[in-house]
Amino acid sequence: MTENLRVAVIGAGRMGADHIQRLNTRIHGAEVAAVVDVDLERAQAAIEGIPGAVALTDAGEALNNGDVNAVLIATPGFLHEDILYKALEKDFPILCEKPLTQDAESAWKIVQAETTLGHKRIQVGFMRRFDAEYAALGRIIRDHELGELLMLHHQHRNPSVPASFTDEMLINDSVVHEFDAIRYFTGEEITSVQVRVGKATRGAAAGQHDPQHVLIETESGVLADVEIYVNAKFGYEVATQASFEEGIVSIGGDKGPYTRTAGRWGGNITPGFEERFGAAYDIEIQSWVDAAFKGEIGGPSAWDGYATAACCEAGVEAQKSEEKVPVQLNTKPDLYN
Amino acid sequence: MTENLRVAVIGAGRMGADHIQRLNTRIHGAEVAAVVDVDLERAQAAIEGIPGAVALTDAGEALNNGDVNAVLIATPGFLHEDILYKALEKDFPILCEKPLTQDAESAWKIVQAETTLGHKRIQVGFMRRFDAEYAALGRIIRDHELGELLMLHHQHRNPSVPASFTDEMLINDSVVHEFDAIRYFTGEEITSVQVRVGKATRGAAAGQHDPQHVLIETESGVLADVEIYVNAKFGYEVATQASFEEGIVSIGGDKGPYTRTAGRWGGNITPGFEERFGAAYDIEIQSWVDAAFKGEIGGPSAWDGYATAACCEAGVEAQKSEEKVPVQLNTKPDLYN
Amino acid sequence: MTENLRVAVIGAGRMGADHIQRLNTRIHGAEVAAVVDVDLERAQAAIEGIPGAVALTDAGEALNNGDVNAVLIATPGFLHEDILYKALEKDFPILCEKPLTQDAESAWKIVQAETTLGHKRIQVGFMRRFDAEYAALGRIIRDHELGELLMLHHQHRNPSVPASFTDEMLINDSVVHEFDAIRYFTGEEITSVQVRVGKATRGAAAGQHDPQHVLIETESGVLADVEIYVNAKFGYEVATQASFEEGIVSIGGDKGPYTRTAGRWGGNITPGFEERFGAAYDIEIQSWVDAAFKGEIGGPSAWDGYATAACCEAGVEAQKSEEKVPVQLNTKPDLYN
Amino acid sequence: MTENLRVAVIGAGRMGADHIQRLNTRIHGAEVAAVVDVDLERAQAAIEGIPGAVALTDAGEALNNGDVNAVLIATPGFLHEDILYKALEKDFPILCEKPLTQDAESAWKIVQAETTLGHKRIQVGFMRRFDAEYAALGRIIRDHELGELLMLHHQHRNPSVPASFTDEMLINDSVVHEFDAIRYFTGEEITSVQVRVGKATRGAAAGQHDPQHVLIETESGVLADVEIYVNAKFGYEVATQASFEEGIVSIGGDKGPYTRTAGRWGGNITPGFEERFGAAYDIEIQSWVDAAFKGEIGGPSAWDGYATAACCEAGVEAQKSEEKVPVQLNTKPDLYN
Repeated sequence: MTENLRVAVIGAGRMGADHIQRLNTRIHGAEVAAVVDVDLERAQAAIEGIPGAVALTDAGEALNNGDVNAVLIATPGFLHEDILYKALEKDFPILCEKPLTQDAESAWKIVQAETTLGHKRIQVGFMRRFDAEYAALGRIIRDHELGELLMLHHQHRNPSVPASFTDEMLINDSVVHEFDAIRYFTGEEITSVQVRVGKATRGAAAGQHDPQHVLIETESGVLADVEIYVNAKFGYEVATQASFEEGIVSIGGDKGPYTRTAGRWGGNITPGFEERFGAAYDIEIQSWVDAAFKGEIGGPSAWDGYATAACCEAGVEAQKSEEKVPVQLNTKPDLYN
Repeated sequence: MTENLRVAVIGAGRMGADHIQRLNTRIHGAEVAAVVDVDLERAQAAIEGIPGAVALTDAGEALNNGDVNAVLIATPGFLHEDILYKALEKDFPILCEKPLTQDAESAWKIVQAETTLGHKRIQVGFMRRFDAEYAALGRIIRDHELGELLMLHHQHRNPSVPASFTDEMLINDSVVHEFDAIRYFTGEEITSVQVRVGKATRGAAAGQHDPQHVLIETESGVLADVEIYVNAKFGYEVATQASFEEGIVSIGGDKGPYTRTAGRWGGNITPGFEERFGAAYDIEIQSWVDAAFKGEIGGPSAWDGYATAACCEAGVEAQKSEEKVPVQLNTKPDLYN
Repeated sequence: MTENLRVAVIGAGRMGADHIQRLNTRIHGAEVAAVVDVDLERAQAAIEGIPGAVALTDAGEALNNGDVNAVLIATPGFLHEDILYKALEKDFPILCEKPLTQDAESAWKIVQAETTLGHKRIQVGFMRRFDAEYAALGRIIRDHELGELLMLHHQHRNPSVPASFTDEMLINDSVVHEFDAIRYFTGEEITSVQVRVGKATRGAAAGQHDPQHVLIETESGVLADVEIYVNAKFGYEVATQASFEEGIVSIGGDKGPYTRTAGRWGGNITPGFEERFGAAYDIEIQSWVDAAFKGEIGGPSAWDGYATAACCEAGVEAQKSEEKVPVQLNTKPDLYN
Repeated sequence: MTENLRVAVIGAGRMGADHIQRLNTRIHGAEVAAVVDVDLERAQAAIEGIPGAVALTDAGEALNNGDVNAVLIATPGFLHEDILYKALEKDFPILCEKPLTQDAESAWKIVQAETTLGHKRIQVGFMRRFDAEYAALGRIIRDHELGELLMLHHQHRNPSVPASFTDEMLINDSVVHEFDAIRYFTGEEITSVQVRVGKATRGAAAGQHDPQHVLIETESGVLADVEIYVNAKFGYEVATQASFEEGIVSIGGDKGPYTRTAGRWGGNITPGFEERFGAAYDIEIQSWVDAAFKGEIGGPSAWDGYATAACCEAGVEAQKSEEKVPVQLNTKPDLYN
């Protein structure tokens, strides 16, 4: 009988609660050992019905709990850095929700710390890589099934965001997924970012410029663009269309039961990212758990966290200048090749 | 400069009015010379704005009008027989809306009369044969592109029918199109018909058994079935799925602009047969006009009208007996081979 | 820390091996404790890498192994009956792949044995109920979202079957899934079965009549039909179209990445049932494990196994007679209401 | 009996031949009276079987032929200007294939000449406006059915172009259709054009930069972009996706019979613009003929020809500079409001 991974989940908000539920009902080989939240009641609610789990308010205390041997970080991004250092010190398997840290500079320091450790411990939560359609498109690109990839067109639409959602968050919280996806698809780094801001929906809060059009280039000259639209009302949608030398591939199309009623044909749109990427989260976490047993990571690395942070910085600058902004990266440590 | 075909349209109801409009605005080489309707005002309204056309109440008078050299019959079915004989006498090109006549026996007499004439003058209005998707499926079958055809599954759905629409009309007016389509697709005669009557929609009028399931076999043993559902509310739909030895072909799928709004993806359903088969009607009538200039017909023949009438008789009998009823046909005259 | 369910998997063939893999890599709260196969080497291969699991050739021995507290039966159907009695004696949670037993009579005895036990222990492996689209259609029907259900049209297509696959197996192994699905969708028992046999594909082996058309009625008069086609070559397909008073719902449509290349648009077909229903199997087994911890079953019961067995017997008789054959059921014990 | 429009078709190449065929077999109220081509044999071949038509090599001679009362210009673009002046002098109804003339300056002179004439005689051949899906999207935008239009994403893909097809032609011959479509959809003029050139397909001839990404803005700030890809190999595709305040609308999706065979589902792609827009051409020409009888035009005007010419000039400049290039227009004469 194998021993399960004993995970401390840091952060019991929406994302953390989802992962706690996941670890305790659908993931093989892992259990929640501790839940940490500044709001102790929230942490306590989260461990209800989980035998042997403790609720705490301090991440350090959780990591020092002898029963814990892995950590899943689902706090707001500004808290990641400190927890990451503590977890690296313990040499624990780490699943860190995106962003790795708040900016490229601090992310680079995490990369260096892990490099010093000598092996990869941090997996970053870019869950789209675990979506079946993303994986299928990735294979088509890598296998050159339709020749060289030339262009990528991405749509990213949310039904709505709160009034507090700023233009910077549009890049840092939303487009960051496409930065990672484009790097994943092309296997290349992003070299520049430009942003077009046009007519705004009246559904946006004051100060929000929504939608925006983000133009991206990669090392080999692949042209990518992202239509980011976060008050799109109709539902959630994430789709990509890839143009190759020999054809076109589309992913993220509508699916599910198909109804004809009242003069209309069609189906329901997934309301949010949990419904769209729920299966991908399960596969992501299972992949992390399985890799942890072998002392490895099972997904995007700290380097991916750092490189996307650099893209985000260029994106935010490009929102202001409306010029093409180059993305600068430090030399990639051998550990990540 | 060519002379146009000068058409007498008999019947100025919905179907006749459509054809008058068609002949005068979209068909090359034809014009309406006369419109006949028992309701003279309706006939007069129909010729408004058509230079040189006359409105009449008597079909015979129209056929004797020196300016007329072709006839399009769009009256209720029980009037067809008499007009057909008169038009055959004139040796005019005839486009007769379905049904050819009211029953198999009278249809057989028309076939004999035309056979005596020695050449085909009657084209029957089974317009689906001119639909691009029907034609494409027909080609796939004839070319054995996917091997032998094995099964046909048809859906035929109307948004609603009046309370006066009887179970017999379900066969004679609606399923008759599938009888012709199955004969067209397979190139074979239908050998038996069975009908299943189950749970009825509360949307049906008293006495209507709707939907029904019609089971059909052809000479080579192709199994076809028709879901006929005429109070389906959601809109109009005619679709077919053909199973072959090497694959499956579906026609009649939903199309057109595709919308995502209010949590739903999809599009609009065609409200009725005019929208669904409008282009097919144009092609049908153009085909008839073009063939008329060469002294031929450009579509289904009187034999097709007779054979489908025999299927309808078997279908109505099968509604009552719920047994498999054989379809009996006279020997096909050489004229139709 | 919870204790995992310790499962004895009986049968290490394709289905059993899939379940072993599932239990050990994706199911939370369960582990394989023993694998039984008449071929000991196959059993030994199946437990490789599973700490604490034993390989055996005798199911009784496995059930008596103190480390085992649940059983998953994945042997050929003719072996089910004996193992079921032994497992019921132990009062273990049982997941039994379909069919429950070989015929309605023996299935009825299992039902009686479980009834004597006084609680449900047997879950039958009709995994389609756990497919997201099946579940969605089930909800639409139960909630009367589009009024009453009137008709069900099913397509069931396999790429190929071995020459040893008989006409009886067409019903017992393939259409059995639709029998259960129709019972699940309507919440009613099936009252009659008719079979139409027409033109056969040249892709069928000698003695196979393929495809066949199975006509089914339920207690309230819902008309269902199944196109069963097991040498369809193009791939695997299971789809259903439900006609309601207010509209039509289709499930099982094609999905996934969508390619335009070489003059064609479209995507790949799932090659087999594992790909089509892989996620449903995971949910089915997780549901069984979760229910087991509460002393319940999490899916179709022994009664469902018995009732579908009675449908299969009627179906096989109908293949021979080509007449409508009534389905007769014993009175349902209270335990299953 | 009405008299038909007697059309001189100038240019008997692929486009001209199509229009000759159209006018003589499918358009009501028009006939070909003369065909002009520098290659007399080609003109003669084109009139074969058309009673009363003459073949000529000189457009002026055709316009002076007493039997001609309308002109359809389908020559290469550099010949349009001269013929347009001659036809305006005759005050004939004119259907001029795009481009109106070779550049914005000469197009502006044509606009002025027509303005002097005092009524519109020139209809420019932007046929997409007559496509059913374009018309439907246009209606949704104008009726504000989903709120304000915010973004337009266009794909324009050709299977291949000859090696002689230059980067300028990519704008002038291909993207010109999207310039008109964006003006038609928004009802606004285009204010700037930017071009991104990235990785080129190895399927492009030497000197061709293919694909390209064209970024467009309109007066109200609608962001449009065009993926233009003219050696896309897989077939022809023209599609648009419009983002609104309340939803998304897509047109140009794949359609037609749907096949499952050999592990793939899907259908055939239209090989070229004739197949994709054949019906739109018919409607366009019928609209022109119908309007001519009333002394009007039935589609895009000379102003549309001029304004798109100005967009093309900006586009070609933008290809070179990779900067955003503003589009400058003269004041619109009242005739076109």
